[in-house]
Amino acid sequence: MEEFALIERLVRDLPTRPEVLVPAGDDCAVIRAEGTGRDWLFKTDAVVEGVHFTAEAPPEKIGRKALARCLSDVAAMGGHPLAALVTVGLAQGYDPEQVQRVYAGLAELARRYEVAIVGGETTRNPGGMFLSVALWGWVPAGRAVLRSGARVGDAIFVTGELGGSAAGKHLDFEPRLAQARWLVEHFEIHAMIDLSDGLAGDLRHLLRASGVGAELLKRAIPISRAAKEAALRSSTAKPPLVAALTDGEDFELLFTVASRDAVPLMDAWKKAFPDLKLTCIGKILAEPTLVLRDRQGVQPLSLQGYQHFSRDPSGTGY
Amino acid sequence: MEEFALIERLVRDLPTRPEVLVPAGDDCAVIRAEGTGRDWLFKTDAVVEGVHFTAEAPPEKIGRKALARCLSDVAAMGGHPLAALVTVGLAQGYDPEQVQRVYAGLAELARRYEVAIVGGETTRNPGGMFLSVALWGWVPAGRAVLRSGARVGDAIFVTGELGGSAAGKHLDFEPRLAQARWLVEHFEIHAMIDLSDGLAGDLRHLLRASGVGAELLKRAIPISRAAKEAALRSSTAKPPLVAALTDGEDFELLFTVASRDAVPLMDAWKKAFPDLKLTCIGKILAEPTLVLRDRQGVQPLSLQGYQHFSRDPSGTGY
Repeated sequence: MEEFALIERLVRDLPTRPEVLVPAGDDCAVIRAEGTGRDWLFKTDAVVEGVHFTAEAPPEKIGRKALARCLSDVAAMGGHPLAALVTVGLAQGYDPEQVQRVYAGLAELARRYEVAIVGGETTRNPGGMFLSVALWGWVPAGRAVLRSGARVGDAIFVTGELGGSAAGKHLDFEPRLAQARWLVEHFEIHAMIDLSDGLAGDLRHLLRASGVGAELLKRAIPISRAAKEAALRSSTAKPPLVAALTDGEDFELLFTVASRDAVPLMDAWKKAFPDLKLTCIGKILAEPTLVLRDRQGVQPLSLQGYQHFSRDPSGTGY
Repeated sequence: MEEFALIERLVRDLPTRPEVLVPAGDDCAVIRAEGTGRDWLFKTDAVVEGVHFTAEAPPEKIGRKALARCLSDVAAMGGHPLAALVTVGLAQGYDPEQVQRVYAGLAELARRYEVAIVGGETTRNPGGMFLSVALWGWVPAGRAVLRSGARVGDAIFVTGELGGSAAGKHLDFEPRLAQARWLVEHFEIHAMIDLSDGLAGDLRHLLRASGVGAELLKRAIPISRAAKEAALRSSTAKPPLVAALTDGEDFELLFTVASRDAVPLMDAWKKAFPDLKLTCIGKILAEPTLVLRDRQGVQPLSLQGYQHFSRDPSGTGY
């Protein structure tokens, strides 16, 4: 069974409560907090030795990554992080020094984003280190940006450059919290998701949740230097465009706005974030398909995002 | 390095926020929720294949246990659970049917206690199944029962019977949520902890947090039938009293009240919970030691609770 099919079965008929506004299935769960003017956000994410990092990775970066993945999900809701719980599974004969360095990297990022680390768990894990973070945050009541709000005619934007994250970015990417807050404060963001499974896969999640389709402009896809360099170095590497469409762990923001907002948004963005690229990569269609437009015309985009139990370095949150 | 020493290093200087009333170190973290009349509780706990359960354990009970451990911690604060996140690490070649049964057991217990399951994560874990639950709950503002409130002269109570949990109870214990709520509604509970590391170890946690000591009455310790039977079956098993003092995963409540409340509490308890034993096992002393009284007099209790990286089936939350 492939991973998304398993998750679909797992999340069917999960117990819920009246306060739960958005259950499993978006970047974060959203729960109404009566009397506070806020909605709560909840997200959990894990990084595992031999899956998301190797034993040689700098321990500080492993800890940093575990928290940064959750922060990226809070950003994708337009939210603010508050507090985290940290679970660490350790193989027998683990190195206490390594564990302390993992924690130090995690705590440093937490301090930067004013996240309290309020508890955790240590336990044995025979296969190696397993690091799971649960994050609690908030958005102003009713203002969480979901995957499901894309509308026909919307312009599709993506921050940064895509592909080749495995060369290094996956260990030290910056969660786009400041950018996401700025976006929701200045524009009506219809739908948003963070890129963890790759552009093609995550855009499909957003399209499916919104019941729409999309056309991407091939020459607009922002391809990272790492993806280009990988293709130059090895003839068996993915072509750069394919890497940008399918590599996991970009942790950039993908979002849609009404087409009339597209130009004002680009102009304001350049002033607010002169050092971070923002690209309009396509538009939302009524027809529920994903197509790629180039000079020759339009063709269906068959590429998938990574499936985590086959070849993906990433896990799947829900 | 032994586990508690590692955890002490890890939780030193963790980032916090002004809203955090109780950081890492009690059964749950407590965070003030302005405007709601509530304080939030947060707890995470994990169960791991080959550590907390074997591959032969019924999958439903594995899922049930993962959530029940967190519920037991919320009970120990006198709190109410609300919502959970579930992280599942799976070995390659995992059985989707088994995963669905794990989830079914977890969801069934969640429904019984009106806990929403609002999200999660699936990922690979080379060593086998790793199941981590993060739980969010609440107590009336300012009413969380901490480990640190025990006062000299307090009577020490424990629910149920202790020891021998590994024979079966660890997979289907009932978290003492109803009892804990009743206790905090009817009496002034000074300090409370749930028994996960064994009576001797967890009582030491409580004494240390409160800056006090205790005298236990040897003949009062409630020993489970499972602990007695294990001692009869094998000459190498722990003596039953030692099992009751040191076996992990009892998941009963240990708490203290003013001595004047001891008799009224026992009387009221028998009416409220006629099927669950409640035992006064000793009293709180000013001197910060733990001693055991029998007919010969008083002697220091040197037994420890389990250390999780050596022989304990349990992990350590903080």
